[in-house]
Amino acid sequence: MESTNGLVTDAEIKSFFDSAPPLRDRVGIANKLKEFIQLNSASQGNGSARRVVCVTSGGTTVPLEQRCVRYIDNFSSGHRGATSTEYFIKAEYAVIFLYRRGSCQPYCRSLPEDPLLECFEFTNGSNVQVRQSCSEAVRRAINDHHAAVAAGHLLKLPFTTIFEYLQILQMIAISMRNLGPHAMFYLAAAVSDFYVPWKDMAEHKIQSASGPLDMRLVQAPKMLSVLRKEWAPMAFCISFKLETDSKILLEKADMALKKYKMHMVVANELVTRNEEVIVVTADKKIPVCRDKTQPGSDVENPLIELLVEKHSAHIKDADT
Amino acid sequence: MESTNGLVTDAEIKSFFDSAPPLRDRVGIANKLKEFIQLNSASQGNGSARRVVCVTSGGTTVPLEQRCVRYIDNFSSGHRGATSTEYFIKAEYAVIFLYRRGSCQPYCRSLPEDPLLECFEFTNGSNVQVRQSCSEAVRRAINDHHAAVAAGHLLKLPFTTIFEYLQILQMIAISMRNLGPHAMFYLAAAVSDFYVPWKDMAEHKIQSASGPLDMRLVQAPKMLSVLRKEWAPMAFCISFKLETDSKILLEKADMALKKYKMHMVVANELVTRNEEVIVVTADKKIPVCRDKTQPGSDVENPLIELLVEKHSAHIKDADT
Repeated sequence: MESTNGLVTDAEIKSFFDSAPPLRDRVGIANKLKEFIQLNSASQGNGSARRVVCVTSGGTTVPLEQRCVRYIDNFSSGHRGATSTEYFIKAEYAVIFLYRRGSCQPYCRSLPEDPLLECFEFTNGSNVQVRQSCSEAVRRAINDHHAAVAAGHLLKLPFTTIFEYLQILQMIAISMRNLGPHAMFYLAAAVSDFYVPWKDMAEHKIQSASGPLDMRLVQAPKMLSVLRKEWAPMAFCISFKLETDSKILLEKADMALKKYKMHMVVANELVTRNEEVIVVTADKKIPVCRDKTQPGSDVENPLIELLVEKHSAHIKDADT
Repeated sequence: MESTNGLVTDAEIKSFFDSAPPLRDRVGIANKLKEFIQLNSASQGNGSARRVVCVTSGGTTVPLEQRCVRYIDNFSSGHRGATSTEYFIKAEYAVIFLYRRGSCQPYCRSLPEDPLLECFEFTNGSNVQVRQSCSEAVRRAINDHHAAVAAGHLLKLPFTTIFEYLQILQMIAISMRNLGPHAMFYLAAAVSDFYVPWKDMAEHKIQSASGPLDMRLVQAPKMLSVLRKEWAPMAFCISFKLETDSKILLEKADMALKKYKMHMVVANELVTRNEEVIVVTADKKIPVCRDKTQPGSDVENPLIELLVEKHSAHIKDADT
């Protein structure tokens, strides 16, 4: 069933979606998407529609049992996706934020680990009160977040498993197709490379007998090429490559660019990912660093600036 | 190296701890433990010391790579441990809550998934305000939680990996040894049965080549018998058995009771675990159900009542 060039075949895609457990609340998600895209693709008064970006964030899980007790998880705090969402909204994009449940949320990254217990206290009148040290972080989290949602510029859709992630991504991409080159995909989620097909999975908890546990995982179908070719062929697409070994990073990013026909691949190394990334395009490798003269500055600030500029060029190219 | 009766050997334990990555802030944890146990083991005015229970909660992770990108996780919300902690504190125990980062916290279980964004809003004076619908849940979370910590009745220690979990559990158990029969272990955490020894682990991210991924995990050493035999031999010990298949549940609970010399094993099935459990002892199987005539009642309420009563008997037995 595997194609010879390493790309996913139609049969593999069909088999993945056919065998996946059905998505809960598919209709609700479809309605939210339709409404969000209608709202933001309408002319904004100045004759041009708002651009829409789908930001994916956090890691997917791969269940090892149907009644899930054990699963394989991909580490990702979701910090990159959450921070980038803030900068996209600042740059007047509408953002569909497809995020792992429990991962970092836009406008919330300066909060402590357990904000409710660490940022609030009761006064004698039994009124809840924000601690002085947290007040700016709490204001940003509640106020800016609510403002973005209320204005219709931020739609949040959660996932946990790779099955949920790919099914919702497909729905988003197909509903963004009509936006043509005004759509962007910023695929920062850490998607599992391997999975256990639902039908091959143990129904019950795997028993720990006396021996070791041998597991065979198969390659998860890479949906990037399908997204580019079929789901939203006019959209501007950026994927991410994370490695812990800097020696193979750029080579792997380059391979992903060509194989999946991405417009750009953001290459990042685990330990330095909040300091700098390298944006790999067909003809250039562009290093992007955070402004080290500014305390608390983010690498996402110049990164999103660069991407918005390249997206503008992509739209201009498509129009001519 | 494996012993013939399926129990863990001294060499296996030594090898696990020797090869584990060193615990961060070991000294800080040791100091907190010492202070907490001193405070609570001092006579409470009425001549008797407070009993101390170690509640473990949430699932452990097993890293698949040393610079961890991928790991295997055990599903556990931590609801059981968090709720039980509240009832133990109500029953005048001091609780050492050894919990998985991000899992459910005591006094917080009625909160929505993202309390900061869902429970608060800004008023025009830019004062933060609790939404009416959440006010009781927020009051409980902040007030009761802070009260328990401030009174010195609740010490919270977080873990993520199985390496952190077992290292901290060992420290807790050894520091509770002097409490003799007044100490209790309530081991509700979902600990991985399998793991990859740190030294066998890939240093870098496992590459997704063209084939399937074959993995071999070895059995994690079961520390329960060591806890009973060496770390805290006088303590009252309760472990948990969760299965998705009710047919094998009681048999497995019984086996665990005998093999690890637990005083009790709480048997629970995945789908009904919030409605009822069965407490397995050497001579009885005691079903414990939540009070269905009371809306919002917990199975942990009668469960902790039963355990406190059995713990009293254990202390009396030891004293005579």
